[in-house]
Amino acid sequence: MKNLIVGQSGGPTSVINGSLAGVYYEAKKKGFNKVYGMVNGIEGLLNENIIDLDDYFKDKNNLELLKRTPSSFLGSCRFKLGSYKDHEDTYEKVFKILDKHSIDSFIYIGGNDSMDTVESLSDYAVLKKKKQNFIGVPKTIDNDLPITDHCPGFGSACKYIATTIREIVQDNNCYGNTKPTVAIVEIMGRHAGWLTSSAALAKDDTCAGADAIYLPEIPFNIDTFVNETKELLKKKSNILIAVSEGIKTEDDQFVCELNDSNLIVDSFGHKELAGCAEILCKKLKKELGVKTRAITLSTLQRAAAHLASKTDLDEAYHCGMKGADLAFAGDSGKMVYMNRVSNKPYKIKYEVFDDIHKIANIEKKIPLEWIDVDNNYVKQELIDYLKPLIQGEVKQIYKDGLPQHIVLNK
Amino acid sequence: MKNLIVGQSGGPTSVINGSLAGVYYEAKKKGFNKVYGMVNGIEGLLNENIIDLDDYFKDKNNLELLKRTPSSFLGSCRFKLGSYKDHEDTYEKVFKILDKHSIDSFIYIGGNDSMDTVESLSDYAVLKKKKQNFIGVPKTIDNDLPITDHCPGFGSACKYIATTIREIVQDNNCYGNTKPTVAIVEIMGRHAGWLTSSAALAKDDTCAGADAIYLPEIPFNIDTFVNETKELLKKKSNILIAVSEGIKTEDDQFVCELNDSNLIVDSFGHKELAGCAEILCKKLKKELGVKTRAITLSTLQRAAAHLASKTDLDEAYHCGMKGADLAFAGDSGKMVYMNRVSNKPYKIKYEVFDDIHKIANIEKKIPLEWIDVDNNYVKQELIDYLKPLIQGEVKQIYKDGLPQHIVLNK
Repeated sequence: MKNLIVGQSGGPTSVINGSLAGVYYEAKKKGFNKVYGMVNGIEGLLNENIIDLDDYFKDKNNLELLKRTPSSFLGSCRFKLGSYKDHEDTYEKVFKILDKHSIDSFIYIGGNDSMDTVESLSDYAVLKKKKQNFIGVPKTIDNDLPITDHCPGFGSACKYIATTIREIVQDNNCYGNTKPTVAIVEIMGRHAGWLTSSAALAKDDTCAGADAIYLPEIPFNIDTFVNETKELLKKKSNILIAVSEGIKTEDDQFVCELNDSNLIVDSFGHKELAGCAEILCKKLKKELGVKTRAITLSTLQRAAAHLASKTDLDEAYHCGMKGADLAFAGDSGKMVYMNRVSNKPYKIKYEVFDDIHKIANIEKKIPLEWIDVDNNYVKQELIDYLKPLIQGEVKQIYKDGLPQHIVLNK
Repeated sequence: MKNLIVGQSGGPTSVINGSLAGVYYEAKKKGFNKVYGMVNGIEGLLNENIIDLDDYFKDKNNLELLKRTPSSFLGSCRFKLGSYKDHEDTYEKVFKILDKHSIDSFIYIGGNDSMDTVESLSDYAVLKKKKQNFIGVPKTIDNDLPITDHCPGFGSACKYIATTIREIVQDNNCYGNTKPTVAIVEIMGRHAGWLTSSAALAKDDTCAGADAIYLPEIPFNIDTFVNETKELLKKKSNILIAVSEGIKTEDDQFVCELNDSNLIVDSFGHKELAGCAEILCKKLKKELGVKTRAITLSTLQRAAAHLASKTDLDEAYHCGMKGADLAFAGDSGKMVYMNRVSNKPYKIKYEVFDDIHKIANIEKKIPLEWIDVDNNYVKQELIDYLKPLIQGEVKQIYKDGLPQHIVLNK
């Protein structure tokens, strides 16, 4: 009888619990005896903070609730193991705890950093001839993992962003042409612009969506930005601009940081950074005299399970299942990934990438050929890539008018 | 054969188009011949910018789409007529245009300012023996209209806020106790705290919801706030605090404005005001050294039709219908209102308030006896008042993964 432990790591998403549900369901089906969860990832494991998932999910209703609960049910961490040469004690402690609970397989659901953990432990196990195997299941709203066509979590964030932009555009337009207004929507993604690009999905016959999209893949010129906005305002009164939080100037400075003379002094005397949407709004107000509104989507874009994409949730679940299959088969140092075998009709195959060394710590950015020649919008190819990922809705379980979630008893 | 014109005014909501749909449906049913819409309210009417609603809504599918479209389909305005003594030309122009199109009845969907317009035009019609009658249909996310138990638009905003807070709490908790975090959520409502109070709805067995709620009805003391947060952090690591954008200090200054030495200097050399959530986050970071996150719900709380409350949408629709009934009956200078005849079970009667003078320009605030003795939360009575308003979900009409809206052809 084999036992498995699963953890979640890094920033949460709307559907990372879908992958957890998939791991649990498939692991039990395959014949794992115990399926444990580590509370707060590898950090919790090191404190032997582990739970038996049967206590929660033998009840199938709870498994459905888990799929609809945003953020990491097991809790997360941002713990880096470091090289085993410097931290052999820590590595040994991990294996000692795994041995103590007779755990054979370890699944980690996460992004780049988490794959680094899987890689390190798997390598160490081979080196020291440990019996355990280690599997990675991808997740990240940023969609910046290589190899996989896209990441679970990304599609739901895109659906939230596109829906929200559509609603903001409706709101912006209500005063007509009497008062030119520019709304700047700031979207997550420090280095890769995938999430920001999803603003383009809002556009259809009835909605202009985002009038311009600025991505971190392209150096940002603030004067060009002001001029482009000025041109847009000649054509229409109410403009919506999507910007990535990670846009940088030609000399590699984040717009939200700028240089010293541009630093914002806060109300309590500290120098403090504002968001880039706010900085750009102030610039436009000064240069063009228009009314502006900075909207920062903040954590909502990664936590809005009530707007999860059904496609995304299903894929998260299947990635989790595939992870359990690999774990049961004794594979190690591998990551589940999605291969888009066809776009029309959209079809995904769940496959296995053998060499996790080629995934960990590498960021996948938007190919430059998918960005518009003017550098302020995206090409149809990118929209075609994104569109299948937001299809379908997940019926939430409502009680008293609000979506229900399941939480860990602490 | 009588004709009617309907307009929307003031800030939009998620369900103000539900009232428009109710007016149109009932007006046609009652026997009005033409049902016109004024584009951008009274301001558009003065430019004779009017449309025949049959062009859009003879198709019943479009009427369903209208109910699910946020913001004001007809466009809005913030135009004040002023006293007829100073602006008789404007008043006469309104009636000239109404006469030209043989319009008998005028319905205005809006808040305090809009009721002022209804009052002024109705009084003028009586004074000058004009044939037209004028009816007000309430709407405002702020819920600050007197007489009516609550306003259409408010419940959906509450549902959005409570849902969003529940999701933010899940997100906040994912790193466990390792890093104390305070999230401050800033909610609309400059003078009345109704919307902010809805943060209390997020709390249930699985979610702590907001740990503290600061309302504009109570003078805000920044040192007390810091101490109260410090106390909360002794009990738990991840705190969520809801604040109204309108909180003011004891000496009647908006927290988001504070005094001169506290003004924020923006990155382009201008003095600029930040939101109060941001200011309070900086204060906490300085005083308590905790990680903070300011989340401003911004326009989303009034535009998120995808999270509309079914109760709210139904009520908006029925208020619109009632308005059309009154208009057909020849009533004038009156406003539709909702009378809560029972709370368990929740039951609303749609009634008519005869004297719009007692509504226009008066703001209804939260009764002080509904605010917790410590002034940083709300009492059960307020929660009981709010709860029925967020019940039920509205199935959006999705296409290609996104909610569909209907817009005016321009």
